[in-house]
Amino acid sequence: DTSIVTKEKSSCKNGIDVMDRKKRSFESRTSVTNHPLARKLFEIMSSKKTNLCVAADVTTSAELISLAEKVGPHICLLKTHIDILTDFSKETVESLKELAATHNFMLFEDRKFGDIGSTVASQYSGGAYNIVDWAELVTVHGLPGDGIIKGLMSAINGRPRGCVLVSEMSSSGALTSQEYVSGCCKIAENHTYFVIGFVSQSNVSSDPRFILLTPGVQLDKSVDGLGQQYVTPRAAVLERGADIIIVGRGIREAEDPEAAAIKYKEEAFSAYLERIEAQ
Amino acid sequence: DTSIVTKEKSSCKNGIDVMDRKKRSFESRTSVTNHPLARKLFEIMSSKKTNLCVAADVTTSAELISLAEKVGPHICLLKTHIDILTDFSKETVESLKELAATHNFMLFEDRKFGDIGSTVASQYSGGAYNIVDWAELVTVHGLPGDGIIKGLMSAINGRPRGCVLVSEMSSSGALTSQEYVSGCCKIAENHTYFVIGFVSQSNVSSDPRFILLTPGVQLDKSVDGLGQQYVTPRAAVLERGADIIIVGRGIREAEDPEAAAIKYKEEAFSAYLERIEAQ
Repeated sequence: DTSIVTKEKSSCKNGIDVMDRKKRSFESRTSVTNHPLARKLFEIMSSKKTNLCVAADVTTSAELISLAEKVGPHICLLKTHIDILTDFSKETVESLKELAATHNFMLFEDRKFGDIGSTVASQYSGGAYNIVDWAELVTVHGLPGDGIIKGLMSAINGRPRGCVLVSEMSSSGALTSQEYVSGCCKIAENHTYFVIGFVSQSNVSSDPRFILLTPGVQLDKSVDGLGQQYVTPRAAVLERGADIIIVGRGIREAEDPEAAAIKYKEEAFSAYLERIEAQ
Repeated sequence: DTSIVTKEKSSCKNGIDVMDRKKRSFESRTSVTNHPLARKLFEIMSSKKTNLCVAADVTTSAELISLAEKVGPHICLLKTHIDILTDFSKETVESLKELAATHNFMLFEDRKFGDIGSTVASQYSGGAYNIVDWAELVTVHGLPGDGIIKGLMSAINGRPRGCVLVSEMSSSGALTSQEYVSGCCKIAENHTYFVIGFVSQSNVSSDPRFILLTPGVQLDKSVDGLGQQYVTPRAAVLERGADIIIVGRGIREAEDPEAAAIKYKEEAFSAYLERIEAQ
């Protein structure tokens, strides 16, 4: 029977196994990346059977902690906008860190860094939020060029940290052209010791080292009033090539956020299994 | 004598006088914009004879207030990164607001908003910093499309506020292509009730309503270690078409920041006078 051989057919580039990302299991991709946090994330996804990231866009610490407690067992990542909390304190991040350890998920601050290197270094490790201290992963715009990666790297001080490059945006009229996406891919490929993947709306890379995260995922609605456009979990994984779906309002605003998280998790993980088995 | 007529020759577009921005005095441009903060800025620049913006990238409130006191009489804008202060408090912004009123300059938070509309609305008016409350102007990336403008606008609640779009960046390898710049210009033209100009490295618009600000200006140095590239005040104004120069390290790190501010102000304002007179 040659079907297994056919399934595992792969090509090589720069010594790295580049068999199409979308056809591989998360578990098998653990061995192609050298980034400790990419490996950790693949392991969480495999063991918890979840490729769900919840966008915790709430404005008080109590709501944030409550949401994290409810969805914690069902997610691989908790995406925060720490700068919208009206009552941020060190206790907030201590509680988040404890919940992340208890439920085995990672903290992912969606800061969308977008400045020159020297500035982002100060923003990452300074100010009221000291993001580098508690967020293992952050989002970064490739717009300023790769000095932004060097700037962030200069602030990590030996800690295991990584970033996800925002290569495409889900809002209407976004200026993320094909040329822009290519520029982001180049930055990622040159900085795999810090970049672990992309926020994207389409299959921007087939490199199995990179993890693709797709926001704007919701089961029911298709637009909001401020330019956000939605896609279903199944379409995100099967049509757009998402490894991880990012869900905000669909879970946060549900009557029962935990039940909603389970529903999204199951739909997204089934779609992923269907994808890797469909060879 | 027809020289005055020749000097003032102008074309019209959509009822707006579009005589080249670079050839017009700040004073005369007051009448072509309907944005109250663009008018206020033109008036400050004309009356104080300064087109200098200082980038106050310091990490304590004491340093920030001290720098603002020293350079206040010589600037039109004070550009802040409020999120790098280790000891931010409401008193910090109260002191800044007082100094801005005393010395007649405007507060300009370089937040580089870069997210979808619903998120930036929360970031602008919420969190620890409540930026909309004290910063009359902010920087914004056009990357997410014009939903970002609508999101920010939804948070101003009747206050006179405006933004500057980052259309080009001074860092090496920046992904701000010509197509990207055009996209930003289109957003600005469609949202003149909020966008008052651009952060740019070149003459991205000749529309006299828009104010061009050029960062990365320094008299001596040409690069830093994290991808930042520098240009002189004269070259910024005469070759790149800057209306306002943004100077950080050249003033902040000078032995006498006030003396340095005067030097930069005089060089940049002379270059501006030379530019409008060179017809």
